[in-house]
Amino acid sequence: MSVFTTVTPEQLGAWLRNYSIGVLVGLEGIPAGIENTNYFVITTQGRYVLTLFEKLQLHELPFYLNLMAHLSSHGIPCPKPIANLDNELLGKLNGKPAALVSFLAGKDLLDPQAGHCAQVGVMLANMHLAGKTYTLRMDNPRGLKWWKAVMPEIIPLLSEEDAALLREEVRFQSLYRFSDLPRGVVHADLFRDNVLFDNNQITGVIDFYFACTDALLYDLAIAVNDWCMANGGRLDPVRTAALLEAYRAVRPFTAIERGAWPVMLRAAALRFWVSRLYDFHLPRPGELTHAKDPGHFRQILKQHIANEHDLPPLAI
Amino acid sequence: MSVFTTVTPEQLGAWLRNYSIGVLVGLEGIPAGIENTNYFVITTQGRYVLTLFEKLQLHELPFYLNLMAHLSSHGIPCPKPIANLDNELLGKLNGKPAALVSFLAGKDLLDPQAGHCAQVGVMLANMHLAGKTYTLRMDNPRGLKWWKAVMPEIIPLLSEEDAALLREEVRFQSLYRFSDLPRGVVHADLFRDNVLFDNNQITGVIDFYFACTDALLYDLAIAVNDWCMANGGRLDPVRTAALLEAYRAVRPFTAIERGAWPVMLRAAALRFWVSRLYDFHLPRPGELTHAKDPGHFRQILKQHIANEHDLPPLAI
Repeated sequence: MSVFTTVTPEQLGAWLRNYSIGVLVGLEGIPAGIENTNYFVITTQGRYVLTLFEKLQLHELPFYLNLMAHLSSHGIPCPKPIANLDNELLGKLNGKPAALVSFLAGKDLLDPQAGHCAQVGVMLANMHLAGKTYTLRMDNPRGLKWWKAVMPEIIPLLSEEDAALLREEVRFQSLYRFSDLPRGVVHADLFRDNVLFDNNQITGVIDFYFACTDALLYDLAIAVNDWCMANGGRLDPVRTAALLEAYRAVRPFTAIERGAWPVMLRAAALRFWVSRLYDFHLPRPGELTHAKDPGHFRQILKQHIANEHDLPPLAI
Repeated sequence: MSVFTTVTPEQLGAWLRNYSIGVLVGLEGIPAGIENTNYFVITTQGRYVLTLFEKLQLHELPFYLNLMAHLSSHGIPCPKPIANLDNELLGKLNGKPAALVSFLAGKDLLDPQAGHCAQVGVMLANMHLAGKTYTLRMDNPRGLKWWKAVMPEIIPLLSEEDAALLREEVRFQSLYRFSDLPRGVVHADLFRDNVLFDNNQITGVIDFYFACTDALLYDLAIAVNDWCMANGGRLDPVRTAALLEAYRAVRPFTAIERGAWPVMLRAAALRFWVSRLYDFHLPRPGELTHAKDPGHFRQILKQHIANEHDLPPLAI
């Protein structure tokens, strides 16, 4: 369960007096999620999600909340933060920074088909276009700098083979910093569980708390590594082509992006291999151990390396 | 019909490339409305309303569009303007200022009951609270100054009795400028056809193009004069009490508001009597004649005057 901070109906009812969304009707803790406390909130006016931030710092939150407001104003179906009567997107509840966002209907898909992947491609490209006018910036907290910082802690816990792979891949990636790649705000965690569908149509993109400023292609590689993955760490060519072609139709690729694509697929795999190794072997004190299998992304990384000349290319 | 400016799917498809809401799927002119050209727009991402502004001037539009964006960000279910890739809410299409807003489901009610009126009261109070932090201002274009300006044109066209009533009421209202009434942004046209319901729940408040900065109580009086009206120009006590009590529970009244209420009900009736007289007798060149019966509001005004000491009071 992941309600770290309890909120009673009485507490929330009082807090909602500083909003213009009616009177509390229902309140229910959301079990999913391991970073924050989340509640479903129903008022006389509608349905919302209440988030109490358990880890993110107060000064970091405006980047995420304003990003969701920005993308929502551009028609991206992401949670829309609700402003309070002080015109602030962020408040405080039971000692924690807290925000209300609109509720999005729909469910995530376990087994996406090419048509779903195409929709994800369109949505991601539109997010990248809409993000061009977003002015706040946030360094990628799980980028090269972080990989290098945590490597000394992780390496001793790995087999010799894995340690060599990790060292070599971090070295390889640090050679390939493409400074001319189109950059902007990226979701950076667009896995299947962060996209909602209803009746086979995307109804929502959620969980922007890894969003940051980075290469747009990096975001695409993260999505492809999840949405288009077949068994054994290899990309399914049909779903990959569907996602990439749909993305390209909205935001065409640059020549540098086409060249960088194989390296970026590896970077995206490395990022989650490292963070899963870290969460698996070095859980923070007091942290719930929802750690996911790091082996999944090691396998993807190894396949991407092995198939270096055989990866599905970016469409032209 | 009220598509004054035709937009073809080809034109709109090209225009939508400057938005991040997907590809055009459907386009349909909306017959209702007499001020602007409106289309339903369906894209791969959702449903929208396209408005081409036929009368309002470019410099006036930011007040309305930013107001809808502001209220929407506060959770008020009004149309949400969609920003384009330049991060602008307002564009230009076929030579006209044009905006896309989110589509709201629901239908207006012809015969509202007390429960609906209570919801309208809550919604209006929440709009007034949320509007407190809205920073743009707009003088009421249909206030005392306008009444005085158009009176010389209207008076010669009226019966002696009506002319006397109009002159006397404008004189009366000009004595009662309550400078201490709570002011803010008001919808100023919250009639039954501007509120959408689905399954007896409010799903939308629309048509903000008469919104302006004025006394909040004036907005309430306009709504009560429509939502709570019985036959013969008298207020239905049950619906009136339901709307006022629901409003008060969200935004309590000040003592000055309670004193001003009977005068404000008359001002709200006068405003629509004058504008309907004006539209009826003096249609602008090239204007479609959808003029509504001015007699309806003359009757309301006369009843409010006759029942001066017997009007439903503001709850305490």
